[in-house]
Amino acid sequence: MERIRVAIVGYGNLGRGVEKAIRQNPDMELVAIFSRRPAGDLNIRDEDVAVLNIVDAEDYVDRIDVAVLCGGSATDLPVQGPQFARFFNTVDSFDTHARIPQYYEEMDRAAREAGHLSAISIGWDPGLFSMNRLLFEAVLPVGSTYTFWGKGVSQGHSDAIRRIDGVKDAVQYTIPVSGAMERVRQGENPQLSTREKHVRQCFVVAEEGADRERIAKEIKEMPAYFADYDTEVIFISEEELKREHSAMPHGGFVIRSGETGEGNSQLLEFSLKLGNNPQFTASVLLAYARAVYRMNKEGQAGARTIFDIPLSYLSPESPAVLREKLL
Amino acid sequence: MERIRVAIVGYGNLGRGVEKAIRQNPDMELVAIFSRRPAGDLNIRDEDVAVLNIVDAEDYVDRIDVAVLCGGSATDLPVQGPQFARFFNTVDSFDTHARIPQYYEEMDRAAREAGHLSAISIGWDPGLFSMNRLLFEAVLPVGSTYTFWGKGVSQGHSDAIRRIDGVKDAVQYTIPVSGAMERVRQGENPQLSTREKHVRQCFVVAEEGADRERIAKEIKEMPAYFADYDTEVIFISEEELKREHSAMPHGGFVIRSGETGEGNSQLLEFSLKLGNNPQFTASVLLAYARAVYRMNKEGQAGARTIFDIPLSYLSPESPAVLREKLL
Repeated sequence: MERIRVAIVGYGNLGRGVEKAIRQNPDMELVAIFSRRPAGDLNIRDEDVAVLNIVDAEDYVDRIDVAVLCGGSATDLPVQGPQFARFFNTVDSFDTHARIPQYYEEMDRAAREAGHLSAISIGWDPGLFSMNRLLFEAVLPVGSTYTFWGKGVSQGHSDAIRRIDGVKDAVQYTIPVSGAMERVRQGENPQLSTREKHVRQCFVVAEEGADRERIAKEIKEMPAYFADYDTEVIFISEEELKREHSAMPHGGFVIRSGETGEGNSQLLEFSLKLGNNPQFTASVLLAYARAVYRMNKEGQAGARTIFDIPLSYLSPESPAVLREKLL
Repeated sequence: MERIRVAIVGYGNLGRGVEKAIRQNPDMELVAIFSRRPAGDLNIRDEDVAVLNIVDAEDYVDRIDVAVLCGGSATDLPVQGPQFARFFNTVDSFDTHARIPQYYEEMDRAAREAGHLSAISIGWDPGLFSMNRLLFEAVLPVGSTYTFWGKGVSQGHSDAIRRIDGVKDAVQYTIPVSGAMERVRQGENPQLSTREKHVRQCFVVAEEGADRERIAKEIKEMPAYFADYDTEVIFISEEELKREHSAMPHGGFVIRSGETGEGNSQLLEFSLKLGNNPQFTASVLLAYARAVYRMNKEGQAGARTIFDIPLSYLSPESPAVLREKLL
């Protein structure tokens, strides 16, 4: 079997998740890991996997089918995205909601010029949750859509805290407000502000001598990430963080409460209960890496979101088998 | 605004649901209803809607953008599908799972030859549930998928009973076996036969003098619909059926229990709680009617399933607005 040759760009939680997920997909093989760190630091034991610096990407143009970009959205992807889209098909999980339109334009231009295909903002939110929001609104035009997250660790938000000067490490929990969830499930269609739906709880390890008050203020005022929420910042020791907050669970649900005809209520729900969030996101990225590879082979180029990619491209099975087995 | 001109073919529960759903979609207008019954019997009060016989379809080729086929899968759609695909773009809810591959081929040929696009087997199962089965298996390759239906009335199954000689009316409830659902939710990954997951309960009004034993036997032995289930057949009066079984609720869920990495459990779930099943199916059909209309305008022809249609085509919003608002 001809396998899809995958590269991982960035070897953090998400990159390691992609490495594990490739082992669950027999039609894929890992050929390279790009990192800013020296190869020896990464502890890669598979001798068939090249460990490379990002500056070496161009040399691998003919040896990689899809690069899975696993860097953070705040500073990595805005640079690495367009850079890698020039050399390879790409998939990423860019999740700074407010900047998606701009990132899309940049990725579309870079990928289109190079004849590559780039799927952006893939994962579960943005990603599978976005997909369900669109689907639910299209099939039930009269109604209200709600997204709740958690309780769980948000990698994007934890990452954003870690980038603050004086922060050594951090874990952020998103927690839905239970009373609000209950009202939605009862079909009340309540109007809920961002603040009424979730609280954010941040466990932060400060560098020695760092100004904790300034760190807490920077977190709480960070636009898009924390400013619109009731955010609790709790400083703890590095030991406590490792001991109590190392698991990476998450979850959430998208619900649409609508009606058809003369007041017939219709309720749609999509939910996730994830034991390991970055590993799940990695698995979603890989399914879309398969799609990107195939669509590019058919001649498509430019940027795509989860809204643009037919589901048939995600499965290793043929359309005829899918119709027979899953429809 | 240029509106999508929709025709309804078959004016039963589903057809009336489409009629109501069109009023919730401002970018669409109902231009014609095709029926085998005389126009006067249908009680259509909108003077802008032409009420036509199916044999008149050809005259309306230039006045209809999409025909929503609302006939039954057992006998109507196999004939009407290819027939209408020659004149119009079509959407249908063909739901005889075992015959989908053959129906797809026939619709693909008819639509392709005429330059039309036909979305087949749209609704919630087949339809949204199929979509989630494919998605869940692609993003979690290691795991088990379960579909549970009910408690609710299955139109397809009720319809199949009504076609039996000697049956005046019937309502079929699909009921999930609660113990089986519980085991799946606990992550046990049980192996469940078709029979272990659901029971089928049929309330039947027999024609006067009909052989009830023969009717019950025909129901219980009907392949694809009832043969693989524990099926209960209860004969009741027409009055009781109207009084106790007139609502058309349904629901169900698709769940995938999988794992990533070294045994991290991941649970995905999609569920529906429908106050009125045919009205919901009608709403799904209309969203896909929009997609079919647009994709055909872009030059696509032939048959498509829910696996082949990107979600962006379902929404009246532009791709840029979708990226900004829903991603």
